[in-house]
Amino acid sequence: MNLNELIETSGEWLRGIGPESDIIVSSRIRLARNVAGYHFPSRASEASRREIAGILRDHIADLANDPPLSFVDIEDLNKLDRQFLVERQLISREHAESSGPRGACIGPKETVSLMINEEDHLRMQVLRSGYALDSCWDEISRIDVGIEERVQFAFHDEFGYLTSCPTNVGTGMRVSVMLHLPALVITKEIQKVFQAMHKMNLAVRGLYGEGSQAMGDFYQISNQITLGKSEEQIIQNVKRVVPDILDYERKARHALIKGDRQRLHDQVSRAMGVLANARRISTEETMELLSSVRMGINLGLIDNIPLSTVNALCIQTQPAHLQKLRGETLESAERQTARATLIRERLHDQNEAN
Amino acid sequence: MNLNELIETSGEWLRGIGPESDIIVSSRIRLARNVAGYHFPSRASEASRREIAGILRDHIADLANDPPLSFVDIEDLNKLDRQFLVERQLISREHAESSGPRGACIGPKETVSLMINEEDHLRMQVLRSGYALDSCWDEISRIDVGIEERVQFAFHDEFGYLTSCPTNVGTGMRVSVMLHLPALVITKEIQKVFQAMHKMNLAVRGLYGEGSQAMGDFYQISNQITLGKSEEQIIQNVKRVVPDILDYERKARHALIKGDRQRLHDQVSRAMGVLANARRISTEETMELLSSVRMGINLGLIDNIPLSTVNALCIQTQPAHLQKLRGETLESAERQTARATLIRERLHDQNEAN
Repeated sequence: MNLNELIETSGEWLRGIGPESDIIVSSRIRLARNVAGYHFPSRASEASRREIAGILRDHIADLANDPPLSFVDIEDLNKLDRQFLVERQLISREHAESSGPRGACIGPKETVSLMINEEDHLRMQVLRSGYALDSCWDEISRIDVGIEERVQFAFHDEFGYLTSCPTNVGTGMRVSVMLHLPALVITKEIQKVFQAMHKMNLAVRGLYGEGSQAMGDFYQISNQITLGKSEEQIIQNVKRVVPDILDYERKARHALIKGDRQRLHDQVSRAMGVLANARRISTEETMELLSSVRMGINLGLIDNIPLSTVNALCIQTQPAHLQKLRGETLESAERQTARATLIRERLHDQNEAN
Repeated sequence: MNLNELIETSGEWLRGIGPESDIIVSSRIRLARNVAGYHFPSRASEASRREIAGILRDHIADLANDPPLSFVDIEDLNKLDRQFLVERQLISREHAESSGPRGACIGPKETVSLMINEEDHLRMQVLRSGYALDSCWDEISRIDVGIEERVQFAFHDEFGYLTSCPTNVGTGMRVSVMLHLPALVITKEIQKVFQAMHKMNLAVRGLYGEGSQAMGDFYQISNQITLGKSEEQIIQNVKRVVPDILDYERKARHALIKGDRQRLHDQVSRAMGVLANARRISTEETMELLSSVRMGINLGLIDNIPLSTVNALCIQTQPAHLQKLRGETLESAERQTARATLIRERLHDQNEAN
């Protein structure tokens, strides 16, 4: 797979389409699996891990996918390319930063990514734009079944699928939705959402998963419990809270609009003004301003920029994307300049097109 | 005089032309005079002040000015119109806010303004754009001589011209230059300038004279001593420090550009972005951002906006100007909106014209 082909595009999950896409950026399901008869990656020898990588790669290649999944040998990638895949949500930061034989099989449109030798031998992910947990589940089940026809996974009659970390034992499943909640952040009600989620055993994380800071008011909500429930129940548990959060965010947006439409319009317009004019800008500020613009588009306060442009900028302004787009390694200060230039160009092109 | 005719224009002093106009916005000389045989305004009866107003108005009308000065009866003006004249620097805030018979004779292009019954019976002012103290002096002398041919001023052989406040006795003269010193503010060297000025018995004030806050990095430097020196010496005292300040500010600008041109460009571009997009904005923020843009133009970082547009916006975004332009009384919050709209329109028109 030639990563450079991905640079100018953004994955399906960033298309800004699908149900509830004014708030739900993307839906994601991942399954953790291990090949029976081998140590988990953290305990396996390099030779053993190489063997597993070969087995999984071959079997995945046999799957009836059209077009087929592309294999990426993470060991062969330089740091920039690995970071690039992290930014695209195709591999985890841990997978990028670890060492030894490991890979990823990436599907067309980047909806599917199968990590080999991450924390578990196999981590399968389906990621789609908007609220699409059912279709994520259909697709990941199909892949899971397809691979399981060829490989025997470590499975315990009582516990279910065995995983490297006990928190994943059972279904090995993590179901998540990435939410854009700017109004709840402005109205400071976001903490209440967090508290409600924790009570329901759901986790709240930032844009780049575990341990990552929430940037641009993007929050990922996912299940914490993988054991003692069926896959359908776990999906149902996440789906149960979504309508309330959507309702909560929409009410906050409308309260803001109704309370002081102009203040919101001012915030959103200024964000556009700064993005379209800055000569250097950090990732954090970019995400913060894009978040305002995104909300502005969804509330009809900005009409000359499509949501997909904002979504694309969210990812293309990330450090590795920026460097891949420029075709060179850039220091932090240089990236701030390149980022501002890219944003100005994209917003300008968009204005020209209108 | 119909004040509404002035609204769409800005006085000569805001044209952004003249020597050193990258830093020296305007030059101003005023003379304080009192008619012999009458109490100073603060001690005079209303009848007496009305008599003085009549005498001065008539004699001023006799001056060979072509076109003649226009008389404005301040007593007849509403609060908004009085504030409007303050913003244009044609009358002082004190003159606007006091009561009783008083007026102003305003010359074409607003370079000349003669206040009647302010702190003294007559306060004559000549105000010009750029560094133009000599031509200010020529013009104010001519007017002073012209009036003194017709009116006997209170004059003491030893002290000179007598004035209501002892600090003006002697020449009754205040010589000032309005400087735009953004780089010295950024580099925090402005305090050194203040200290140097105070040591030389020069006063430093904000845009609207005594007691006013410095807004938008505009500082007015003027003499404090009016007694014991000739008019030429007083002008010379102010002129003596100007080259050093110009040099100091220019060096600071070049150091900023040389040290981190892009940081400055970023600041200036963001200021433009916010001005061109905000939906509500305060006077203070407007002045701060216009100050950045003004410096940007002078340093060649912005080339699609003329200095005169920025100068005009500095005055037309002031509260009374804004309300006169809109033709209605506006509350503070409404003014913030009207101000943002005006700025967006002006900057947009300017962009269209380019």
